[in-house]
Amino acid sequence: MAGLGSMAEESSKTATLRSVGEFSFINLVEARARAFYRDDVVVGIGDDTAVLHFNDREFLLLTCDGQIEDTHFLCQLTDPFSLGRRLVNVNASDIAAMGGKLRWAVIAVNVPPDTEVAWLEKFFDGLLWQLEQYGACLVGGNCSKATGKLVFDLTVAGTVLKDLLVTRKGAQPGDLLAVTGTLGRAKAGLEIIKAPHCFQDMPQDVIENLIAAYRVGGARVELGAKIASVGLARSMIDVSDGLLQDASHLCGDDLDVVIDAARVPVNPGCVMVAERSGEDGLWWGLAGGEDYELLFSVPPEKVNLLDSIHSATGVPVTVVGRFCEGKGRVLLEREGKIETVKQGGWQHF
Amino acid sequence: MAGLGSMAEESSKTATLRSVGEFSFINLVEARARAFYRDDVVVGIGDDTAVLHFNDREFLLLTCDGQIEDTHFLCQLTDPFSLGRRLVNVNASDIAAMGGKLRWAVIAVNVPPDTEVAWLEKFFDGLLWQLEQYGACLVGGNCSKATGKLVFDLTVAGTVLKDLLVTRKGAQPGDLLAVTGTLGRAKAGLEIIKAPHCFQDMPQDVIENLIAAYRVGGARVELGAKIASVGLARSMIDVSDGLLQDASHLCGDDLDVVIDAARVPVNPGCVMVAERSGEDGLWWGLAGGEDYELLFSVPPEKVNLLDSIHSATGVPVTVVGRFCEGKGRVLLEREGKIETVKQGGWQHF
Repeated sequence: MAGLGSMAEESSKTATLRSVGEFSFINLVEARARAFYRDDVVVGIGDDTAVLHFNDREFLLLTCDGQIEDTHFLCQLTDPFSLGRRLVNVNASDIAAMGGKLRWAVIAVNVPPDTEVAWLEKFFDGLLWQLEQYGACLVGGNCSKATGKLVFDLTVAGTVLKDLLVTRKGAQPGDLLAVTGTLGRAKAGLEIIKAPHCFQDMPQDVIENLIAAYRVGGARVELGAKIASVGLARSMIDVSDGLLQDASHLCGDDLDVVIDAARVPVNPGCVMVAERSGEDGLWWGLAGGEDYELLFSVPPEKVNLLDSIHSATGVPVTVVGRFCEGKGRVLLEREGKIETVKQGGWQHF
Repeated sequence: MAGLGSMAEESSKTATLRSVGEFSFINLVEARARAFYRDDVVVGIGDDTAVLHFNDREFLLLTCDGQIEDTHFLCQLTDPFSLGRRLVNVNASDIAAMGGKLRWAVIAVNVPPDTEVAWLEKFFDGLLWQLEQYGACLVGGNCSKATGKLVFDLTVAGTVLKDLLVTRKGAQPGDLLAVTGTLGRAKAGLEIIKAPHCFQDMPQDVIENLIAAYRVGGARVELGAKIASVGLARSMIDVSDGLLQDASHLCGDDLDVVIDAARVPVNPGCVMVAERSGEDGLWWGLAGGEDYELLFSVPPEKVNLLDSIHSATGVPVTVVGRFCEGKGRVLLEREGKIETVKQGGWQHF
């Protein structure tokens, strides 16, 4: 029973997802699935996407992610076009984190019979539009009657040139930790949506930017491919569960990463929203989640390439920390002191 | 608004999935998605699986299907190991219908937090075991918190040699309609599960066979590949929604198919269960659904190959009808009279 650690046999019989947590459960499935892997599986469960032998030049990438009503979205707080875009983006971000290119998608639509066709049309318009932005298309799917909530699961297939593949593994002691864009936007957007009257005197473009970050998400597909093509990243992941949690996935068991709090690129709009809410903007940047930026380890000799990436794409890329030998911990350096941070970030169960 | 036919603009605004039906909705999505297809899409939405340019020798096949609590299964009427197997089989059957081979799968697991890990372990044991039977493995997935029912969506990627691809299109007037195995098993199995006391004096092996057909399903993967490899089928589909409904998908717009009622291979166990239930066994065979047998069109000059397929595999293959010029209708010939049958078969909405 890999992944359930030291749980006694008896307690494991009554364990639930809530009691063991999402990651223990995934570890457990991974251990079982691994026994069946063949030579054509390059990377299986445990990274952003599966990497498979495809043809001589490219690997096939396969990933799935979903949007569930009341878990990932509330119908009254989003519109179907944005939701369709978001479903593509949460998957596209995983392809981006491998340096890959999106190609095809299939969708599972699980919805109650009284779902309005007009709503679904707008959802598909958003989904198809967003796929097209990434050069991909919808080629199949399945439609089932659900008795409860709306559940949409999308699977995206992509490709990456064999030489350019980047995975979660590979960071080395001394590597720098870099992140694209700014953090905390989606968290701030959700706060605005929940209590718009508290923020109505903020600049309208800032408000719209933050709300879009929450509703639509985004994915650094082009940037991910660019980072991979210049060999800048030794390992990479997307920031979906929050910087602290996702950084830990780059550490493996034998590295620590020290994040310099002063350098974390918290989005200025996020800082404004957090201040008005009496909350800590830095914490939202560290643990807010759903930012879909890229987080990667950079060999120190390549740090000068970061500026050229910024110049070429217009997207800021910030060094926020460094890796050192350790045991998989994420440490936060704040005003000269290093704190061990309790893992904060999105966990489903 | 392709697929919604002659609906007035006004009524389409309030149309629901229930009012337009599953297939109209799929047509609508297909029409929108098709506009974005690129050259690498050989077959998109509308067939059993998507067919994509993969490498010089093979096409990539991509399909997804799910199992939703209270729609496809009831927890009290199935066990998790069987359910895991069934989730693989419903997808494998779609790969089989193209003459393909299963390679990889990714799963979306949407479950409430109080789901027992032990139950999920058995589910994954069944899923992994069944994938292994087809030479495939689980390489990724996603786990999300659902607030309502259990929803499992599996996406399977497969391959097929370019020369051997079989799709739903291609039947010609004069072709024969053939089906593998026997029909009505799953429907009969469900009846037994719902009222076991009514059937307890039936032979135990018959009861078990029918119940397994309902709980586990099956997929004619090896047989599909065999049929494709000898060039026996001009077009093919799997029987998931019932013989009548699936046969109509092989007709297109310009063929009819006449099914000879006397030749439909209704499973003998199904006939027994239907008789005791005061129902028509033939109707269960024609419309019961979830049989996961293969249904295909055979050029008349190749009909002698059917016997050799039977001899080589032990699976009966039966000619049940013939195609003629027409307009997409399924006709039933019974005691010398030809009836137009109302489309009977599983529709979700």
